[in-house]
Amino acid sequence: MEIDRKAFRSLTSGLYIISSIDADGRLCGCVVNTLLQVASDPAQLLVSINKQNATAEAVSTSKRFCASVLSQDTTMDLIGTFGFKSSKDIDKFSEFDHSVCESGLPRLTHDTLATFEVRVDSTVDVGTHLVFIGTVEDAEVVGEGTPITYDYYHRVLRGKTPKKAASYNDGDDPAKDEIVEIEETASSEQKVAWRCRMCGYTVEGYPDGLPEDWRCPMCGVGRDYFEKVLI
Amino acid sequence: MEIDRKAFRSLTSGLYIISSIDADGRLCGCVVNTLLQVASDPAQLLVSINKQNATAEAVSTSKRFCASVLSQDTTMDLIGTFGFKSSKDIDKFSEFDHSVCESGLPRLTHDTLATFEVRVDSTVDVGTHLVFIGTVEDAEVVGEGTPITYDYYHRVLRGKTPKKAASYNDGDDPAKDEIVEIEETASSEQKVAWRCRMCGYTVEGYPDGLPEDWRCPMCGVGRDYFEKVLI
Repeated sequence: MEIDRKAFRSLTSGLYIISSIDADGRLCGCVVNTLLQVASDPAQLLVSINKQNATAEAVSTSKRFCASVLSQDTTMDLIGTFGFKSSKDIDKFSEFDHSVCESGLPRLTHDTLATFEVRVDSTVDVGTHLVFIGTVEDAEVVGEGTPITYDYYHRVLRGKTPKKAASYNDGDDPAKDEIVEIEETASSEQKVAWRCRMCGYTVEGYPDGLPEDWRCPMCGVGRDYFEKVLI
Repeated sequence: MEIDRKAFRSLTSGLYIISSIDADGRLCGCVVNTLLQVASDPAQLLVSINKQNATAEAVSTSKRFCASVLSQDTTMDLIGTFGFKSSKDIDKFSEFDHSVCESGLPRLTHDTLATFEVRVDSTVDVGTHLVFIGTVEDAEVVGEGTPITYDYYHRVLRGKTPKKAASYNDGDDPAKDEIVEIEETASSEQKVAWRCRMCGYTVEGYPDGLPEDWRCPMCGVGRDYFEKVLI
């Protein structure tokens, strides 16, 4: 038995927002790369969500979720908000376009190409995550463009993987490796950079410090969250 | 309730070969776009397979499957063989490189970037398909290259969707629409083409008939399976 974690990087997926509503009526949502069509007649979708996410609890209770397919033009503040913050702490939808599904759930329409409304039929406990499988009750095209892939997010946008993601592997996630590569390439002539302690986003330059009004383009936190690193 | 089937086209997935062995020791395998990592610690993979596929029955019985991640350079005869023929009729592995997993299952290594060996923990019946969820016992990188996406298969290779696929929508699958678009564009000056009755692959030209030794580059059948169409 041998598990080379690099093998998992070749699995292809998109990036989506899963949204639901909890028992107290609070709007919940998170980024996932685990949405999948598992049957076509009737159409059924499946999603895997970390149990620690507020959204997993909301879907467990409401037995419903909405899914929004993110566009390649998705802004990093949307991914930062939905990927690196908790719906228990903030209303993630307050700054992003959204609508309400027939069943009363929030449905993100910001940076979104298509939305689905799903009624959960089965839930499977897979350890760290819950897998929800359900019937599609509504499906709409809401925008034009190219869907963002998880690969594009890592390679082009240099995005990090939240620790609760299904594909997160501590010490061996693709984004981290990319940063290691940058460090190695630059080792003969080190440069100042600033790394976000919240989400890991790293920006080069600013040897005298980040601007006062600096906000992390990934997760939105202020400059106090950034630490100086040499790359 | 409204279901716009075009919404499903924005879901992103890769293309994979799932392989297993049936109760009689017969090697089974099929193409899927439904492989997903659903948890990372321990790593778990999930796949949805149409109940009519011999591979679904084999996985149900053996409680194990191997998964091979196909490369963007995958040849159409491999997709044709594993996607449009039945393991009940032929030994799909006979003409393609493969090895044997520790558990005795066949594992395709032809046009493959990475392989996984999975022990099934749960099976969920979702109507037309069975969803298998299991623990990864072996994961290996076996080649270098870019993983093929389902989108690439449709857009660039102009591949068709087998009727048993989770994402097949009769009369409204993306590949079919693409062919319709070609027909519309060419309507003012029609050309001869030949369409495979087995898999739908269409080739332009050959007004006097296909060559005698013609074989469908998609599914491998001979020229008798081709019908003349005007595009």
